[in-house]
Amino acid sequence: MIQNAADHPLHRMVNPRSVALFGASNNFASMGTSILHSLLHMGYEGRVYPVHRTEETVQGLTAYKRVEDLPEAPDLAVIVLPTRVVAETLEACGKKGIRSAVVVTAGFREVGEEGAAREAELVRIAEKYGVRFIGPNCIGVTNPHAKLNTTFLPFEARPGFVGMASQSGSFVTQMFDYLDQYGMGFSSAFSVGNSADTDLVDCLEYLAAEEHTKVIALYMEGIPRGREFLSLAREVVQKKPVVALYVGGSEAGRRASLSHTGTLAGPDRLYSGVFRQAGVIRAKNVTELFDFCWALGSAPVPRGNRVAIQTHSGGPGAAAADACSRNGLAVPPLSPESLEKLAPLVPPTASVNNPVDVTFSKNPQDFFDKLPDILLSDPGVDMCLCYCLVPDDMAARHIRSLGLSPEEAAEKSREWAAAMADAVADTAAKHEKPFFGFTFRRLSEVFCQRLIARGVPVFPGPERAVRAMWALCEYHRLREKILSSGR
Amino acid sequence: MIQNAADHPLHRMVNPRSVALFGASNNFASMGTSILHSLLHMGYEGRVYPVHRTEETVQGLTAYKRVEDLPEAPDLAVIVLPTRVVAETLEACGKKGIRSAVVVTAGFREVGEEGAAREAELVRIAEKYGVRFIGPNCIGVTNPHAKLNTTFLPFEARPGFVGMASQSGSFVTQMFDYLDQYGMGFSSAFSVGNSADTDLVDCLEYLAAEEHTKVIALYMEGIPRGREFLSLAREVVQKKPVVALYVGGSEAGRRASLSHTGTLAGPDRLYSGVFRQAGVIRAKNVTELFDFCWALGSAPVPRGNRVAIQTHSGGPGAAAADACSRNGLAVPPLSPESLEKLAPLVPPTASVNNPVDVTFSKNPQDFFDKLPDILLSDPGVDMCLCYCLVPDDMAARHIRSLGLSPEEAAEKSREWAAAMADAVADTAAKHEKPFFGFTFRRLSEVFCQRLIARGVPVFPGPERAVRAMWALCEYHRLREKILSSGR
Repeated sequence: MIQNAADHPLHRMVNPRSVALFGASNNFASMGTSILHSLLHMGYEGRVYPVHRTEETVQGLTAYKRVEDLPEAPDLAVIVLPTRVVAETLEACGKKGIRSAVVVTAGFREVGEEGAAREAELVRIAEKYGVRFIGPNCIGVTNPHAKLNTTFLPFEARPGFVGMASQSGSFVTQMFDYLDQYGMGFSSAFSVGNSADTDLVDCLEYLAAEEHTKVIALYMEGIPRGREFLSLAREVVQKKPVVALYVGGSEAGRRASLSHTGTLAGPDRLYSGVFRQAGVIRAKNVTELFDFCWALGSAPVPRGNRVAIQTHSGGPGAAAADACSRNGLAVPPLSPESLEKLAPLVPPTASVNNPVDVTFSKNPQDFFDKLPDILLSDPGVDMCLCYCLVPDDMAARHIRSLGLSPEEAAEKSREWAAAMADAVADTAAKHEKPFFGFTFRRLSEVFCQRLIARGVPVFPGPERAVRAMWALCEYHRLREKILSSGR
Repeated sequence: MIQNAADHPLHRMVNPRSVALFGASNNFASMGTSILHSLLHMGYEGRVYPVHRTEETVQGLTAYKRVEDLPEAPDLAVIVLPTRVVAETLEACGKKGIRSAVVVTAGFREVGEEGAAREAELVRIAEKYGVRFIGPNCIGVTNPHAKLNTTFLPFEARPGFVGMASQSGSFVTQMFDYLDQYGMGFSSAFSVGNSADTDLVDCLEYLAAEEHTKVIALYMEGIPRGREFLSLAREVVQKKPVVALYVGGSEAGRRASLSHTGTLAGPDRLYSGVFRQAGVIRAKNVTELFDFCWALGSAPVPRGNRVAIQTHSGGPGAAAADACSRNGLAVPPLSPESLEKLAPLVPPTASVNNPVDVTFSKNPQDFFDKLPDILLSDPGVDMCLCYCLVPDDMAARHIRSLGLSPEEAAEKSREWAAAMADAVADTAAKHEKPFFGFTFRRLSEVFCQRLIARGVPVFPGPERAVRAMWALCEYHRLREKILSSGR
């Protein structure tokens, strides 16, 4: 396993100083043009060379008739041309000295024998010239830290810590907006398409070394290079967590995968076993894939599986407790010391069993600093799960009735919610124990947004939070096992 | 089981012509004042009488010193007073002729023996005067169709078709905003609190007859009056679906429920058996509870469990197919007739196996009318699940490049997305087969919003859609079983 990302062949592909683009034109509806727009929209700062047989300029940029005409050998070629001319273009790129390529064009192995022959030709050319390429039949790559986006969808999110390698392009592009809702973003993301030259294993190796990547997400329709995957993953997970969504395990999933990327999927249980052995956390669905990444990329190492649940409402507390039990997390009674410290802060209607349900807070401020502080100080508590209800509209309504204007009230209410969130985040940070929130309201509310920005994940509903906490514990359990087996 | 909702004692509680409010004041921070604000905020059109010992007016309304002073016997009393004066207030209400009450105040059975005695006293008074009351220790009731909201949180959503009865107030108030995201809302919702007089069974009976309620959601920490629940539910589900979230089945859930509402929960498997026998669909979590309601309240009766999956992207299609297989739904090959009809509409890279993955649409319009029309016409297809990707920003970007201003482009793109959504909705409606969408993007996008407004649920992710489709099939299977056992 390499230690320095810059030594990996994929480094240049997602950190190019210049890009040649084949397929962009002045026809706004073409895929190549969309990719050019995505690149420019993101503010890519390198040099961009559209290559076009007839146009002098493409979308306002100087265009070049042939790759030979380019003033330099760019770091990356992005190819979105008709299938029949892809091989000759790749060869021209190789001759020019281009060493990385993204082949978006489809019509290769996934369409049958003839396509497979065309794909073998690409591999032969790449080997001849020492070109590393991703695809064909892929959607591109993105590295928001380098303002690079070679997909046809604009990247509207922020740079983040999730490194992604996917056998489906949609699990790259469709996640721009999805991750943004949770304050997450990609560090780098790869759509591997048919994996003719670069596959999930290559991406895993690169992302393991890549500095912005705190957690790696894989979308898989099969496990490529089984032995290599297993031994590499066992090394990677010692350093950073890997979460995988594998959809080929069921009958219909297997059939769909086969016609999608020509991947032969393996039986579900066998694959679950491989993932476990590799220390890779298997997500049951897309939601879990990124929920797990959120927790694993944000939270400190839990010392165990004992959860304190803090709430001011019984139902959400009970639902959280139930979810913990169903996922192998303990919800133990608090220590006598903690109970003693809690007593003066909670009203007589409160229940200080775990869940700690304060019902109505005597002083709302306590709920956000003293209470979490007491819970996280308890040596019998490894993690805290807190019900988050600080509705913008209600606080504003209260404040408005003090005689403030709607604008002033809204502003004050935002300030107040942000201060509460800071109190929680400060308390959580101090203890170095995992702290998660959950809410049924929109995450766009100030309190949740601020908590999320401060690195405290707030999940929509208790069950998603608890599943993510399970993943966090499971990762560290598997990691410990792998570490101790190597000692 | 009653047939006419107006004959049920709960009818007047959620359709009052006048309300007496005990506990509202000029202190904006009190719970009673919040409730008054909620009531006024929603535009309640009946008469509102704040009762307050000392104030002449409360939040701008004429206040009355004692219930005896009220100019009429209001249809409903809402009581948010200190625990010790609740009984005398209820008695005064009874004497005045008030016949419905919501008792929000806590400090009864849930706090132990003394509280239980206080609660028994309330029941005695209610019986003496023929008062029906909900609570104590509840959060109130809401009937958005009558602009009634007696909870402390403002109702920001729309009237809808979900009838809710909950042992947790939060699963009423916190769902206002939650349901709104999915274009749903409550028909009526009841927080039963300690269920001293009105329990889930009473609410179930009322909601079964209530005309706006298409589907009933229950949040339960135990099953009250087991035999009556079972026999009533078996009648109700013949008429409309019932979905239940039961959280008392696990060890921590059981303990939390006990300290929350004093409910003794039963073992999980036994309860699952009771629900099945009752024809009630059990949801695994809050998300499922309302996802199931969405599907059950929107979709026509499926003739079977065979799903056609329509996508233009392989990964989401494979994930959807995998989810179907895991939930007992079939994803069968299409009929030769359907394949023949599809052939001219899809590009050579398409896969017309089920999932039908068109990859890139030849003509986007086809994707939204001709394709669903072909799939839904297939006699081997009972339901359709469609990947929804019509991003506002991308369409606008394309249109902008035609030379339109950003505002014009945004407007055109909205019109276009709405027209596409209408095409899908029209096609789906014509066939009277369940049709569902899924997306990874925000539901706030025009295309999704329009589909949702047209009654086509669009779920965040394929797995949630598939679970809801499972619930739809399961309900009709159980209903058929109950119907045939009664024949």
